[in-house]
Amino acid sequence: MKNENRRIILGSRPSGMPTKENFQIVTEAIPEIKEGEILIQTIFLSVDPYMRGRMTGIKTYVDPFEVGKVLTGGVVGKIVESKHSNFQEGDIVEGQLDWADYSVSNGRHIRKVDPNLAPISTALGVIGMPGLTAYFGLLDIGKPKEGETVVISGAAGAVGMVVGQIAKLKGCHVVGIAGSQEKIAYLKEELGFDAVINYKTDQIKQALKTACPNGIDVYFDNVGGEISDLVMRFMNFHSRIVLCGDISQYNNEKIEYGPRFQSLLVTRSILMQGFIVSNYSKRFAEGYRDLAKWVSEGKLKYRETIIDGLENAPDAFIDLFYGKNIGKQLVRVSNE
Amino acid sequence: MKNENRRIILGSRPSGMPTKENFQIVTEAIPEIKEGEILIQTIFLSVDPYMRGRMTGIKTYVDPFEVGKVLTGGVVGKIVESKHSNFQEGDIVEGQLDWADYSVSNGRHIRKVDPNLAPISTALGVIGMPGLTAYFGLLDIGKPKEGETVVISGAAGAVGMVVGQIAKLKGCHVVGIAGSQEKIAYLKEELGFDAVINYKTDQIKQALKTACPNGIDVYFDNVGGEISDLVMRFMNFHSRIVLCGDISQYNNEKIEYGPRFQSLLVTRSILMQGFIVSNYSKRFAEGYRDLAKWVSEGKLKYRETIIDGLENAPDAFIDLFYGKNIGKQLVRVSNE
Repeated sequence: MKNENRRIILGSRPSGMPTKENFQIVTEAIPEIKEGEILIQTIFLSVDPYMRGRMTGIKTYVDPFEVGKVLTGGVVGKIVESKHSNFQEGDIVEGQLDWADYSVSNGRHIRKVDPNLAPISTALGVIGMPGLTAYFGLLDIGKPKEGETVVISGAAGAVGMVVGQIAKLKGCHVVGIAGSQEKIAYLKEELGFDAVINYKTDQIKQALKTACPNGIDVYFDNVGGEISDLVMRFMNFHSRIVLCGDISQYNNEKIEYGPRFQSLLVTRSILMQGFIVSNYSKRFAEGYRDLAKWVSEGKLKYRETIIDGLENAPDAFIDLFYGKNIGKQLVRVSNE
Repeated sequence: MKNENRRIILGSRPSGMPTKENFQIVTEAIPEIKEGEILIQTIFLSVDPYMRGRMTGIKTYVDPFEVGKVLTGGVVGKIVESKHSNFQEGDIVEGQLDWADYSVSNGRHIRKVDPNLAPISTALGVIGMPGLTAYFGLLDIGKPKEGETVVISGAAGAVGMVVGQIAKLKGCHVVGIAGSQEKIAYLKEELGFDAVINYKTDQIKQALKTACPNGIDVYFDNVGGEISDLVMRFMNFHSRIVLCGDISQYNNEKIEYGPRFQSLLVTRSILMQGFIVSNYSKRFAEGYRDLAKWVSEGKLKYRETIIDGLENAPDAFIDLFYGKNIGKQLVRVSNE
């Protein structure tokens, strides 16, 4: 155990693209825990696009981050001290905790992670929040049927690559949209996507036409903006648009305008449903079970992009908006 | 029986707002029917906003109207000659038939109307396609719960006023949006809407805030455009947007731009679902039954705007886009 605790606080609210200046590191003593609490040493920290929204200062489904207060996010860590009857020193746990070397928790919403089941980092990715997001969004809202065409934007991200693989397991024709040849090669060759469009270099409209000869039945949207405008033109009658996020808009300082598409939704009877994974909290056990099973059977692969050092978490976060990560972006804060 | 048959044909495709010049009347002999056919004399003709889409020449869920061919729409008429075993002279029927004095049909999709149950004009309105549209859109997609707030745009139209009354039957707080004091008085005083906003004279945003103190749970949208942009800002977490139409956009020559709202749908887990009433064709009997029951019990009121004379059908259609009708817009072509 170290003898000090570094914490990353929100120094200022970003306007537009976040920069390193929006973050500050403070160093404090390792906190003392009280009866009923646990002290967790961070091993992996998750950086997630949705956190950008919390930096804006507007209340949505979660409270905004406060300037001058520590950032919080998904953490996998080890219990180094426990005064809580359900947890023991040495337990590996996952939860929403501080962007810090150490966090204190009363154990609520802290999930134990079995290190023998899968690498513990997967508790933040394929068998964690992003995996569940893919699982419930695709299966509960998208409801893909065998032979249908599923298009995924942000396909090489932590959520997108799980969506594509589950869609393949369900017998769908799976088309991804991603932003580099490395990502495309991985999705096609390793994960079995039927086609992947490079939104930076391909003529997206023509590429969609070629890749989706029968139109699109499910669109799992992580990016929004102009890519989605194009995808929507190919949606079939009775198709479903799963709105998971719109990372292309997160750094806009005001709401962007785009072509109105309500007419399209009416004439083609299209469903568009926004969701957040916590809507499914009562069914998480089912999701964890299926995801872990598919991982153990080799049916669900995953990839991680890991940066070392808590001090590099802001960079890892900013990189998300440049699409640098393939799969889950993690920060390794200490060794297992 | 007359001795000639006037038919209204599409003279040219409208660009922008339709004008009388887009329509032509031709006069022909009354058609002869063959074995298995019926000859129907039009009593009431329905004019409906969705027909504008068919005039554009683009295939959607229905084939476009062809220039030089007769227009078709909802008709209630009387059988004046039958060579079909299921129909007899004198039967009152409803179906998609010609904008004409007389139509020939083989009986498919022709529904018999019981003139003792309700005035036969209701087969084109409250107990017809608009009523079914309101019924299935609100109940199957909107799923209003007691105590929830339901907002309806185009509230004084044939669909909107049924939506509002069903929502009241379900115990909801019902807020309409309409465009004249006469409409507002009718919706509030006769139909029991809790509040109605005049989109032409009220500050819509402030009026919505006042009328919907608990936010909006269901938005039944008939108009789209800027009114909907404002309504959407008040949608609650897990709320539902029923997309029935967007009459504000029907005469646009190109797709209008508006603020992107995918972010809003995600952070508030909002459902947006486009639909057309024929999606529910297998459940029409259920809808007709409930609507007729509510009408007979006085729980569901209706109003019609009737213009006399087939030759005035184009005017009646154009008037829809100026919001001149209250309730169902009909053309009386002959007497019962």
